[in-house]
Amino acid sequence: MPKIGAAHHSTGGEDVVMPRPSAVVSASEQAMSIKYNTMVYEMTRAGQKVIVMSLGEAFFDIPLFHMDDLPHPAVYHYSHSRGIPELREKLAGHFKKAYDVPINPESEILITAGSKAAIHMALMSILDPGDEVLIHEPTWVSYPEQIKLCYGKPVRIPLDAAIRDYEKYVTRKTKAIIVNTPHNPSGYVWSESDLGYVLDLAKNHNLWVLSDEAYSEFVTTDTFVSLGALDREKRHSIIFNSISKNYGISGWRMGYVIANKVLTDQILKVNQHLITCPPTILEYYISKHFDRILDITRPQIRAVVEQRAQLSRYMKEIGLDHLPGTATFYFFVSIAPSKLGSEEFATRLLQNDLVSTVPGLGYGNSCDKYIRVSVGTMSLDDNMHGLRKIKELIEKTS
Amino acid sequence: MPKIGAAHHSTGGEDVVMPRPSAVVSASEQAMSIKYNTMVYEMTRAGQKVIVMSLGEAFFDIPLFHMDDLPHPAVYHYSHSRGIPELREKLAGHFKKAYDVPINPESEILITAGSKAAIHMALMSILDPGDEVLIHEPTWVSYPEQIKLCYGKPVRIPLDAAIRDYEKYVTRKTKAIIVNTPHNPSGYVWSESDLGYVLDLAKNHNLWVLSDEAYSEFVTTDTFVSLGALDREKRHSIIFNSISKNYGISGWRMGYVIANKVLTDQILKVNQHLITCPPTILEYYISKHFDRILDITRPQIRAVVEQRAQLSRYMKEIGLDHLPGTATFYFFVSIAPSKLGSEEFATRLLQNDLVSTVPGLGYGNSCDKYIRVSVGTMSLDDNMHGLRKIKELIEKTS
Repeated sequence: MPKIGAAHHSTGGEDVVMPRPSAVVSASEQAMSIKYNTMVYEMTRAGQKVIVMSLGEAFFDIPLFHMDDLPHPAVYHYSHSRGIPELREKLAGHFKKAYDVPINPESEILITAGSKAAIHMALMSILDPGDEVLIHEPTWVSYPEQIKLCYGKPVRIPLDAAIRDYEKYVTRKTKAIIVNTPHNPSGYVWSESDLGYVLDLAKNHNLWVLSDEAYSEFVTTDTFVSLGALDREKRHSIIFNSISKNYGISGWRMGYVIANKVLTDQILKVNQHLITCPPTILEYYISKHFDRILDITRPQIRAVVEQRAQLSRYMKEIGLDHLPGTATFYFFVSIAPSKLGSEEFATRLLQNDLVSTVPGLGYGNSCDKYIRVSVGTMSLDDNMHGLRKIKELIEKTS
Repeated sequence: MPKIGAAHHSTGGEDVVMPRPSAVVSASEQAMSIKYNTMVYEMTRAGQKVIVMSLGEAFFDIPLFHMDDLPHPAVYHYSHSRGIPELREKLAGHFKKAYDVPINPESEILITAGSKAAIHMALMSILDPGDEVLIHEPTWVSYPEQIKLCYGKPVRIPLDAAIRDYEKYVTRKTKAIIVNTPHNPSGYVWSESDLGYVLDLAKNHNLWVLSDEAYSEFVTTDTFVSLGALDREKRHSIIFNSISKNYGISGWRMGYVIANKVLTDQILKVNQHLITCPPTILEYYISKHFDRILDITRPQIRAVVEQRAQLSRYMKEIGLDHLPGTATFYFFVSIAPSKLGSEEFATRLLQNDLVSTVPGLGYGNSCDKYIRVSVGTMSLDDNMHGLRKIKELIEKTS
């Protein structure tokens, strides 16, 4: 006889009686991108050749330098839970030079096991249960899930709203707004005036603005503005950046968060109880080779962004629309003429045409007439082939 | 004029008006061990020679193998968010052989960025707000803080209670019990009968048992029992282990969690939204060199545990008491005859005698007549010197 409060779950034919998992995690959704990339993985393993336009990373050619000359045995032990001082200084210097944001490396920056972890820990540090956070669709899948895991409430602003409409969504419970520049999946680069509007909103309503700038290097013109340049005392700003994403080493899980001293001290406590520090050996490695890695990746980033521009022109030629944007390696492509929803569209595209993308639905309910197309991993020809297949499927299903 | 709901914080002389940090993180406490180790760090930097008995790690002599022969460029990219299959298979095989716990590497294990992160993600996956978790003092500082960060309620069982007393603390809100074997800070190895009692309690009251076995290699006799050996279907058990701790590479942040398929799938979602995966390059490294690392560290672990036994006999000689225990590199040493509380005791010991320990108060209010003494990093002579200084300070302040 099962106990009261026990949950029944079927695992491979057999019922398991076990205590119930938490409601908040049970209700949490897996990223749509992971679902589709798992399908790609299985098809590839079965020998099928898939044009992969679904990955959240760009592939670069980066050598692996020796690790033998890193400080031994320090590489094996805990580092400072803010990150090793050398790397904090390096990143603070980089941010000042590249984006004109002054950062005190002692107190205003934490190096974290990826910017994803940094965003979650920052949300934990600002949200009380029931607090609302504004996110504008299309929105990266983990924002709403992270907010819900902190018992906050994601308030979704639909795709067709403008940035100047955000104030309509502010209530007494609003605690924060998340912005993402350059934007995944549209590639839109927020202007100084966009960021200024949101920052004023934050000042007027006493909110935080979380600015996810993980793809900042993928803006190759001088149009990128960090939120920190407009709020140099960081009174309302929390800024996230990614070493993993920007330098093509997504699997190394290394990011950082920039905030004022008071908030940084709060996030630090969370970091100490959740993760402690990113791997010390990788911190030393990045610190030592930072400039070399930049030199190697920057021309490759430029090439990716140039290819994106070329593909944007090609889409115009063949009559494919996408949301406005010039940066990153993503397009948010409209499938509007098609009668299919984005999940069915992406599934048919993958199964029949061997082209993988991510359904727009994963980025919000207002995005079901879009798919995310990533052009960071395949050749120009393969990407053009993929885009033609998208166009054909739209026509076939219109 | 400050806004309603704004918080004032003093940062270096200047008041900052900013939105309030969350209540749950504001109330979270920094680990006492970090506070004291930061003091040690600053004294050492100022040129003082400190006998360090406060660290949560053992120092081993481990070479760093080349990374050039790891699969390139795979080392740079995301790995499966359960961890790379090779390493999951290796760890499952190891656990079966060493501890007789059957594990399906496809579905019952996740490799995580440290076992600390694994424990937090498991707590998120089982706790609804207000759920109670039993923890027995002395308790590792992050357990209560992690429980509170999940909006659960830590229920502290005082030091002088026996394991057989746990049932008294079970209420309708109890959801889980955390056990830690071998125990930090006492070194106590839980017997099969201890674990069996707790598992029965879990069955009768429909609870989870979280078994933190991060120091399992530091039991050098055959007395170690994994909770998983008693609950082979893992209906009530969640087991944590640490590659970082067990193999002297604490700074690499690599651990794993073993649970049934249903719960593992829940923890996986949390992992995908919080961290994605531990660094791929380190997963490949550990997978390739696992057996070599074991061969190198095991004799050194034996030496540390032997030294611990020697120091235990020495403590008996000079009249220092500690909680019963035979494993790990920790002692929970009684300062009872002293009139000082553990914080004042540890502070005076550090400042006057240059011996660093961690106040018992960090492990619970019932532990203020103890200090944690770690013997994993210094020589036998230095450790003996440190113990004599403890004894002298007790006598001076009795």
